[in-house]
Amino acid sequence: MSIILGPNRYGKAENRVVRIYRDSPRHEIHDISVSTALRGDFASAHLAGDQLNVLPTDTQKQTAYSFAKEKGLLSIENYGLDLAAHFVDTVEPVHTARVEIEEFAWQRVLIDGSEHDHTWVRRGQEVRTAAITVEGRGADRRTWVVGGLKDLVILKSTGSEFAGFMQDPYTLLQPTSDRVMATSLTAGWRFSTTDVDWEATYDGIKQVLVSQFATVHSLALQQTLYEMGRAVLEAFPVVAEVRLSAPNKHHFLYDLSPFGVANDNEVYHAADRPYGLIQATVLHDDAADAGPAWDSYTGLV
Amino acid sequence: MSIILGPNRYGKAENRVVRIYRDSPRHEIHDISVSTALRGDFASAHLAGDQLNVLPTDTQKQTAYSFAKEKGLLSIENYGLDLAAHFVDTVEPVHTARVEIEEFAWQRVLIDGSEHDHTWVRRGQEVRTAAITVEGRGADRRTWVVGGLKDLVILKSTGSEFAGFMQDPYTLLQPTSDRVMATSLTAGWRFSTTDVDWEATYDGIKQVLVSQFATVHSLALQQTLYEMGRAVLEAFPVVAEVRLSAPNKHHFLYDLSPFGVANDNEVYHAADRPYGLIQATVLHDDAADAGPAWDSYTGLV
Amino acid sequence: MSIILGPNRYGKAENRVVRIYRDSPRHEIHDISVSTALRGDFASAHLAGDQLNVLPTDTQKQTAYSFAKEKGLLSIENYGLDLAAHFVDTVEPVHTARVEIEEFAWQRVLIDGSEHDHTWVRRGQEVRTAAITVEGRGADRRTWVVGGLKDLVILKSTGSEFAGFMQDPYTLLQPTSDRVMATSLTAGWRFSTTDVDWEATYDGIKQVLVSQFATVHSLALQQTLYEMGRAVLEAFPVVAEVRLSAPNKHHFLYDLSPFGVANDNEVYHAADRPYGLIQATVLHDDAADAGPAWDSYTGLV
Amino acid sequence: MSIILGPNRYGKAENRVVRIYRDSPRHEIHDISVSTALRGDFASAHLAGDQLNVLPTDTQKQTAYSFAKEKGLLSIENYGLDLAAHFVDTVEPVHTARVEIEEFAWQRVLIDGSEHDHTWVRRGQEVRTAAITVEGRGADRRTWVVGGLKDLVILKSTGSEFAGFMQDPYTLLQPTSDRVMATSLTAGWRFSTTDVDWEATYDGIKQVLVSQFATVHSLALQQTLYEMGRAVLEAFPVVAEVRLSAPNKHHFLYDLSPFGVANDNEVYHAADRPYGLIQATVLHDDAADAGPAWDSYTGLV
Repeated sequence: MSIILGPNRYGKAENRVVRIYRDSPRHEIHDISVSTALRGDFASAHLAGDQLNVLPTDTQKQTAYSFAKEKGLLSIENYGLDLAAHFVDTVEPVHTARVEIEEFAWQRVLIDGSEHDHTWVRRGQEVRTAAITVEGRGADRRTWVVGGLKDLVILKSTGSEFAGFMQDPYTLLQPTSDRVMATSLTAGWRFSTTDVDWEATYDGIKQVLVSQFATVHSLALQQTLYEMGRAVLEAFPVVAEVRLSAPNKHHFLYDLSPFGVANDNEVYHAADRPYGLIQATVLHDDAADAGPAWDSYTGLV
Repeated sequence: MSIILGPNRYGKAENRVVRIYRDSPRHEIHDISVSTALRGDFASAHLAGDQLNVLPTDTQKQTAYSFAKEKGLLSIENYGLDLAAHFVDTVEPVHTARVEIEEFAWQRVLIDGSEHDHTWVRRGQEVRTAAITVEGRGADRRTWVVGGLKDLVILKSTGSEFAGFMQDPYTLLQPTSDRVMATSLTAGWRFSTTDVDWEATYDGIKQVLVSQFATVHSLALQQTLYEMGRAVLEAFPVVAEVRLSAPNKHHFLYDLSPFGVANDNEVYHAADRPYGLIQATVLHDDAADAGPAWDSYTGLV
Repeated sequence: MSIILGPNRYGKAENRVVRIYRDSPRHEIHDISVSTALRGDFASAHLAGDQLNVLPTDTQKQTAYSFAKEKGLLSIENYGLDLAAHFVDTVEPVHTARVEIEEFAWQRVLIDGSEHDHTWVRRGQEVRTAAITVEGRGADRRTWVVGGLKDLVILKSTGSEFAGFMQDPYTLLQPTSDRVMATSLTAGWRFSTTDVDWEATYDGIKQVLVSQFATVHSLALQQTLYEMGRAVLEAFPVVAEVRLSAPNKHHFLYDLSPFGVANDNEVYHAADRPYGLIQATVLHDDAADAGPAWDSYTGLV
Repeated sequence: MSIILGPNRYGKAENRVVRIYRDSPRHEIHDISVSTALRGDFASAHLAGDQLNVLPTDTQKQTAYSFAKEKGLLSIENYGLDLAAHFVDTVEPVHTARVEIEEFAWQRVLIDGSEHDHTWVRRGQEVRTAAITVEGRGADRRTWVVGGLKDLVILKSTGSEFAGFMQDPYTLLQPTSDRVMATSLTAGWRFSTTDVDWEATYDGIKQVLVSQFATVHSLALQQTLYEMGRAVLEAFPVVAEVRLSAPNKHHFLYDLSPFGVANDNEVYHAADRPYGLIQATVLHDDAADAGPAWDSYTGLV
């Protein structure tokens, strides 16, 4: 029995790159947090402290900033593809590079009804995400792109039930035919190709997710999530798989009866913790293997 | 020399009240965090543990939720005025009640271009705030209302200089004639009256703040803040005083020259800490005394 | 009626200075976040964008780091006094300088029962704080020092009651003779002198606060706070005033009776929000005026 | 090509259970955040909104609180094993239950040098973690236990080098033979058995991790992590695999030379972002398959 090194990776996390396009008086802004992680032949660094194969994380940082100019930073998926390919193609010991990006959206301020050329407020709604994995060179090259969003807080004040559920001796919950349903959605969608109009696709998928949440009469959050994923797959053939994670942000009807005040689904307490947490995957039955597409850098290896 | 009890207050903080208006199929939502704090004759509670004068913080909570129905929750300033007056008028030992509110805005989702009746996404931009202080009864009644916002993240990619500053032996900073200027604005405005169209005034003040940030050619954040405050006072006679707190969220131009890459104000690093922090008050020279208007419950007494 | 500039200040917030003493193999570490804020003759910066009187916030940062070596960083109160005095004494337009410091404590790791020379874990308990205000020069010089702590999470599982309180129509709370009492304490103590053994005093005051919380049989958090403040004043003649802010971190007894399980004050739910918030000042009746001692830079001006 | 439901799970996250043992005047406290997640035959809930197989997340919450009394809450691993087994054994559609726990440690306050019976301060250092997965019934039963910790902030002020690394055109970093090395460690250790003295093992593993960080002369964080994992495996035969995730919390030597001040590794800036992020697995080469042991509920399914 001997002790061995298992999976490992390293990189630079949360580089805060802001790119201004100022070729005309009407500037553009792209604001991201980008993390890069490399896997490959780094055993000697772990076993012997030998850094010969280790490209410093500082170098990865420099590259991330420089590529915002060299390659541009328009669609985060393209930027991530360029950056990941660079590490695999130019750093010999690297077998796989992963680039994870969060993009913070800005919207132009309106002055007398017109969009301003160079002033924005942070939109503050959901964060757009992308995770790009590039593995191997030449004929062995494989690429996975996962688009996504997080922190999309969405609520419907009716059109949601929860009833007919299983009961056991610990079950106190009463069924309800009309409740507030709210979540802070995290979603990821795995592309089956890189030949994608990234911007239109992002906007379109977000719209589908939101529309389904609004218009599906919900018998449970599970059902809503499935219908959201299904609709994305139907509308966007470039997507092979959708994963959804939805905390059930409980809004408890507040009991005002002790004060002689009626409360017909009007006053709620928005609770912090605990919360339900529902997660689902919806995919094409012939989707290619996900490989490392979903191996987030924020977890353990 | 003896030891005495000084200023003190107590209350319930961060009640998360959500109010749905559902009188028609087109629901309305108001989502707040409300804190209440009472000052008055509570010495015996401190000195002797006697709670006879102490209305429980739990009672304050119940009242906050019930008033969302009894009084309504349309404008947070009115809701806060009702709640603060209630405590002063009905709880004998209370001399002063303060109600601090944060409101989280929601916007209707669009389905096929139409606003949905009962589904929203959290807007996620700035948080609207109000702080209401009510003191005394009858002829001694005094009232202060401070409206405000926080977390309004705003950025301009040009139109900002910083030069001609004082220098000392620790000064390394180079002057610049074109920089990114960004902040996460906190602002408060003290009203000179309660006869106010709270909604229109909030929207109007926010618009003035944003417009000034965008259109004033900035020689320093100090100047921008002053021009923001001044414009609010000029446009809204109901406002006596404006206070502004603006972290200078530094965006450092990234040096790409080692890589032979030009960077003409295009690629920046958005730094977290430290940050500049600029604060200014702008007021009418005949503004009434601010009294306890600005004594935030989040600080020490 | 005209518009004027009111109180204002500016500075650099949250400089993360770490100072290692390595004069012997047994190193020492001091780890702080320091913010500096200047008040003075800065009207022209606000009114006209003229920076002639404005020492850049970057310069304040450089000074904060350099003073960690030049003046040393042993007691944060002394470091803050040096830094604040420097700005008032050497920057002509500055009338008042305020330095706010948070110190993060580290403790040596134990290896085979012995303290290691140069490895520590962050202690992670309370954060020590200091706020130093220096005003004027020469004969007009005035100085205020406030020591303190925050985030000291403390809990007692018995020895706390809450009963005999005022009741109104919104009162549902039941009295209790035995509850969990927990808080995350913020405390500040204003010194009447700068001739203080800062380290021993900090340790001593913290011990008094903790002891009183533990040993006073509590009839209400108000009473506990008062007894904490009183005991500090009695034990430390160098302290003129104590301010305490204590969220009542509610631990609700969990109702297990539906499952036939007894719960004799054994299983609780620790709630996040809302929370009670109790604040009190205890001081000597002949304490000198607090002046700007408590004007925190984290609030509005 | 058709659309199908893939992996899914649901549960209640972040139940904040506090358990007091008060059988003698010397109370004991255990303070946890526990999340439960179930996998199984829930397709009809997703596909048709049929909740017949769905035990509500509220029921999972009730069970988590009740088990703190019924089963006790001494070692989080045992509590988690009981809770997970309960769901698999009593809820027919459940195939797998996962329980994730964070434990917040408290230490008794000292009064006149003696530990107090019922008052504690939150220790505030690392958070202890456990993740228990129970799958199947009877002969098919499989169980995985992962112990761990997170947020252990540890720093050494010397004994760390970084040199001899790979260089490319984006490499600006200079080698160093003496730097501050600091991290906020997350670690998990997978047990090969449930016949473990959980408390002694936790304390022992933490001590090994800390000792190795302190005493291994570090040529890179990779090497330090490997030596930490290796030492745990050697000292604790009940552990099959260790995973480590270590942000390199950069401490940059501050350049004081412009001020004529020497800085011989004495004054540093502690940076927030970006940070290096190094992750490694160390395991026995004959370790059983990890199965779902590491599938964290905080990620996507």
